[in-house]
Amino acid sequence: MRFSVHARDESARCGRLEFVRGKVDTPAFMPVGTHGTVKAMTPEELVASGTQIILGNTFHLMLRPGVEIIRLHKGLHNFMQWQGPILTDSGGYQTFSLARMSKISEQGVVFKSPVDGAQVSLSPELAVEIQQQLDADVIMVLDECTAHAASWTEALESMQLSLKWAGRCKAAHGEHDSALFGIVQGGRYADLRRQCAAELVDMGFSGYALGGLCVGEEFSEREALLDAMVEELPQDKPRYMMGAGKPHDILRAVHSGVDMFDCVLPTRNARTGFLYTRSGLLRIRNSRYRNDTRPVDESCTCYTCRNFSRAYLRHLDKCGEILGARLNTIHNLHYFQDFMRDIRQAITDGQFAQFSRDFCRMQPLDTESVA
Amino acid sequence: MRFSVHARDESARCGRLEFVRGKVDTPAFMPVGTHGTVKAMTPEELVASGTQIILGNTFHLMLRPGVEIIRLHKGLHNFMQWQGPILTDSGGYQTFSLARMSKISEQGVVFKSPVDGAQVSLSPELAVEIQQQLDADVIMVLDECTAHAASWTEALESMQLSLKWAGRCKAAHGEHDSALFGIVQGGRYADLRRQCAAELVDMGFSGYALGGLCVGEEFSEREALLDAMVEELPQDKPRYMMGAGKPHDILRAVHSGVDMFDCVLPTRNARTGFLYTRSGLLRIRNSRYRNDTRPVDESCTCYTCRNFSRAYLRHLDKCGEILGARLNTIHNLHYFQDFMRDIRQAITDGQFAQFSRDFCRMQPLDTESVA
Repeated sequence: MRFSVHARDESARCGRLEFVRGKVDTPAFMPVGTHGTVKAMTPEELVASGTQIILGNTFHLMLRPGVEIIRLHKGLHNFMQWQGPILTDSGGYQTFSLARMSKISEQGVVFKSPVDGAQVSLSPELAVEIQQQLDADVIMVLDECTAHAASWTEALESMQLSLKWAGRCKAAHGEHDSALFGIVQGGRYADLRRQCAAELVDMGFSGYALGGLCVGEEFSEREALLDAMVEELPQDKPRYMMGAGKPHDILRAVHSGVDMFDCVLPTRNARTGFLYTRSGLLRIRNSRYRNDTRPVDESCTCYTCRNFSRAYLRHLDKCGEILGARLNTIHNLHYFQDFMRDIRQAITDGQFAQFSRDFCRMQPLDTESVA
Repeated sequence: MRFSVHARDESARCGRLEFVRGKVDTPAFMPVGTHGTVKAMTPEELVASGTQIILGNTFHLMLRPGVEIIRLHKGLHNFMQWQGPILTDSGGYQTFSLARMSKISEQGVVFKSPVDGAQVSLSPELAVEIQQQLDADVIMVLDECTAHAASWTEALESMQLSLKWAGRCKAAHGEHDSALFGIVQGGRYADLRRQCAAELVDMGFSGYALGGLCVGEEFSEREALLDAMVEELPQDKPRYMMGAGKPHDILRAVHSGVDMFDCVLPTRNARTGFLYTRSGLLRIRNSRYRNDTRPVDESCTCYTCRNFSRAYLRHLDKCGEILGARLNTIHNLHYFQDFMRDIRQAITDGQFAQFSRDFCRMQPLDTESVA
């Protein structure tokens, strides 16, 4: 993986990640392909939305279908027929958020599979090995996601464990072709965040992720943490804010110099009938759209908006039709990728501050209440 | 609508329906678009499967979204963006199979909407008016579906009501551009079937449907009824066996001279993981496919078979992924349209009997146990 920055506007930056499997313009949004599919989409539809890289969930894939079956297909790309780059997470986050009976030790995590109740272990070395077997283009270190409520001492201990694991992941990764990213933890303590970032930089990774954010902290608190971390990170490596995807969150993080994002928001909201538009979130189930023959967003050029009315999408949603989930997902992904393209253009033009102000005027924060 | 027959092989025939919106090669299979969508498919995917005409359900559409909303979109084609011909049923069948508290009189049917419990009426005149407002290319008369268990006298009375309604539908239809089809009823009594067919032919319709079949009767019993009806029907009008779609049923009806078919089988079976192949039905949930990297059917050229393995489809099905329902539906519809194309070719080549024998040897009746 090669990374280059070709435009800056204050701390915001516009760049490019280059992989054997294709290039990714940054700031980039990565749709989430939990079970080896970005929900409801074919690979071709992802490409049409402007998607250049997707995220795969190691936790889900190691449990179903299992790494062996993906290896039989010569990797995740071939299994799901996505030809572009893939970033996989380490699986660590889900061992806490989804699995029961998780037990953590210096060795790693032991948890009960939510699929079949079997006891499963995940260590730093195994997390790297699995991601290599999936043939991911970007691999994440195993880390412990520090709870937002953690005290300074708890956050420090958790961070120290994550740093040890990061070192073991780097050793296990060796000279492998894929890019390995470290993850900055440290809870809500700027001093720990700085320390963690600095130690990871000393180890040397191909990119740096900001973990444990968007877990309930105030907007202003996150801004301070973001700025603290980014100050410690090298200019020539990509920065990735994990799991964050509300447009306002993306905008603020880009302002701090973040380059990569992933989130289930556009796809999940699509399936529950929340559609993004340039003038705010549209809830297609609302009865006001029952006889509305206009497209979701008249300025949008996606397949859905070019062909179908709000009334039709509302009807499909009311009937629980699969096509409704599909058309909504196409629109929302297209919206997100257009949004990233507009951000990149604004940075290139030196107009990012103005772009952010215009966006927040069109879409005040409190109109976007969907999680 | 114009209809022409250009090849015959005994009673089987190959022809063409021509509409302003496109041509349909017969024998033809019509996927079912219950709620204004063939489940899980875009219009483009239907075209890619070889589909030339689809069926819309008046009963479902009149309840949701309601005819007024479809009229606002200038008809069902524009509402759902299907540009080819559409045949709509009259809604009569579902008033018996899906609605509670159906009451039938000479005037029509009164039933409780399964959507909101409201009392809804449907008369022959209203059934025609609604189908015209949907802008269907082929419109069906309102009929009473005679129960398989009906005695001769009950079947006679039911048939007489259906004939009266057929006459009222024809009067209500007037000089409208769409094609109006009559429906032959008469239960399991060949003499009533003949009489009903003859009386409908006297009234004069653009085509004739065979109703109340595939409702539990023996295969041999249906053959006798089919042959009796078809003998009474004119050679220059299309014949349509309603709701029948197992490949064996289609094959036998084509043998009797039937031209049109519709069924939810390929789409519904797709969503429950039953896939059609040239060597029989494949249940993708079966654990034997968990590490099978072959396509569903190696001789199939559909998008699914060109790109994805059985193991991937099984994985998607196990995870309840929308993409699984989509890929399975693409395959099954492609299979059905290929099957119809093969039937047409066999008739044209004068090889239909041989084709039927080969098919039944490859797929004995009892291997296809899915309903």
